[in-house]
Amino acid sequence: MKKYGFGVDIGGTTCKIGLFETTGQLVEKWEVPTDTQEAGKNILPDVAASLKGKMQERGIPKEEVEGIGIGIPGPVQADGSVAVCVNLGWKNINVPKELEPLMDGIPVKAGNDANVAALGEMWQGGGKGCKSLIMVTLGTGVGGGIIIDEQIVPGTHGAGGEIGHIVVNPHEKIACNCGRKGCLEQYCSATGIVRLAKEFLAEEHGPSLLDDVQEISAKAVFDTYKENDALAGKIVEKFARILGRALSSFACVTDPEVFVIGGGVSKAGTPLIDVVNKYYKEAAFSSCTDTKFALASLGNDAGMYGCARLILE
Amino acid sequence: MKKYGFGVDIGGTTCKIGLFETTGQLVEKWEVPTDTQEAGKNILPDVAASLKGKMQERGIPKEEVEGIGIGIPGPVQADGSVAVCVNLGWKNINVPKELEPLMDGIPVKAGNDANVAALGEMWQGGGKGCKSLIMVTLGTGVGGGIIIDEQIVPGTHGAGGEIGHIVVNPHEKIACNCGRKGCLEQYCSATGIVRLAKEFLAEEHGPSLLDDVQEISAKAVFDTYKENDALAGKIVEKFARILGRALSSFACVTDPEVFVIGGGVSKAGTPLIDVVNKYYKEAAFSSCTDTKFALASLGNDAGMYGCARLILE
Repeated sequence: MKKYGFGVDIGGTTCKIGLFETTGQLVEKWEVPTDTQEAGKNILPDVAASLKGKMQERGIPKEEVEGIGIGIPGPVQADGSVAVCVNLGWKNINVPKELEPLMDGIPVKAGNDANVAALGEMWQGGGKGCKSLIMVTLGTGVGGGIIIDEQIVPGTHGAGGEIGHIVVNPHEKIACNCGRKGCLEQYCSATGIVRLAKEFLAEEHGPSLLDDVQEISAKAVFDTYKENDALAGKIVEKFARILGRALSSFACVTDPEVFVIGGGVSKAGTPLIDVVNKYYKEAAFSSCTDTKFALASLGNDAGMYGCARLILE
Repeated sequence: MKKYGFGVDIGGTTCKIGLFETTGQLVEKWEVPTDTQEAGKNILPDVAASLKGKMQERGIPKEEVEGIGIGIPGPVQADGSVAVCVNLGWKNINVPKELEPLMDGIPVKAGNDANVAALGEMWQGGGKGCKSLIMVTLGTGVGGGIIIDEQIVPGTHGAGGEIGHIVVNPHEKIACNCGRKGCLEQYCSATGIVRLAKEFLAEEHGPSLLDDVQEISAKAVFDTYKENDALAGKIVEKFARILGRALSSFACVTDPEVFVIGGGVSKAGTPLIDVVNKYYKEAAFSSCTDTKFALASLGNDAGMYGCARLILE
């Protein structure tokens, strides 16, 4: 009988590995370094050695392992093949074909890291109990993942859930990292919030706690927002209006049960969710105004959980 | 052996019925009037009588019928229940539960009309050969349907594919039919194009063929556009910029293989697709710039085809 599954979220510096019971219970988690030398040729063998070591240590026969889910920081095709993954140095690697022989034929599936994180949050995180969600990751950039009927939507070009790159301001002068101008990411990422803050600070304004902050950060903006600072209020309202409106558009596409908000910026917690939800409701199509909002709850482990879910579904 | 399936697209005035081979070949199509009297209580019995009559006429035993797919002009739950359908007068009707007993237990499935039309275009129309698409219906309003992995995305509130109601202009003063302001539908429907045209005509402009048109219509705008009329060019470019940008946002959500453009406005044909595609490419995320554009090809039969596909998949 199958009792276990592994989730392996491969990042540019470390691989987060989790041993899960098929019920979704995390048994143990650990990390191995990601060796990106020589086009990353050691990454999958290193993962295999670590998994086999753990199975031996715990006396788990391969018959008890349902499979291994792998998360990759880049686009992944449905069959688990990766054309290019800059962060790992990979070119033209089919993950299941490489890893399964090293694991005595235990089945392997692979997915994009942002998408598996969304799946993880659906399974055991902020979206638990929901079958369809949109995950919004507010970090250095804005990422996302779309889940419909408990399945990842990877998209034809691997761009499913690339919600940071919808154009929300066609009049923007400054370019986004993606080369276009006016992307959601330019206003709603941690970097974007800092930029909005600097613009407001450069204008004439009343006294603000932010005037005394040495290095403006998204955290500083939300911290002072929670202290009812008027200027921080303006910054956060602008951020929330842009994000809330964007989410209202997404609701007219896949109409999810819940928006799960994660990434570093989401550490601001409930006040952030509340203000985004306020602008979402204002802009949302009438039948979608009650769509739920939730904070992501698995943090950096979301990908590892989602990887396990890939093969335990 | 199952050889046949029925597709029944129930509209406010007529029901379009198709007898299909399981291969997707249409054998025969016909219509029956939709009797909306007495809260539409006769609609499903009338459909059943027509289907049974056709089976008798052609000597088709029920064992040869895979099922019956029904399209409804309103939101439909996954189990085929309809809370309210204004156009049919229905309240709290479960379509399979009502229709299956009348059809000697032949399985019945139901879906929203816009969504089944998208499914029909995927199966035998402009999106044939594709597994994921976004259908955009440019009629009196702007409707849509989202198909992922050959499945309709109905959405949590039945709002999946309600793409006409994303807000594209938060500064709009005039209200949309939905009550909000600045919806895509206000600019890109047939009505919206007429409105854009009137705005351009009211401004100072050079000589235009549109000056001689008695009743401005979307058709008149596209007809004069094809004759290289400068003013029509401005109207069409504005329409296409708004629609192309909206589609580029949708590509960052579900990243479809193809956008299928249908509805009355799409009779303008290839020149319409080309100009929308031009603005789409300008706004699209880099990995999605080559997403295909196709004209819907099934016209008013798309829903009937999609209904059949519902039960022949």
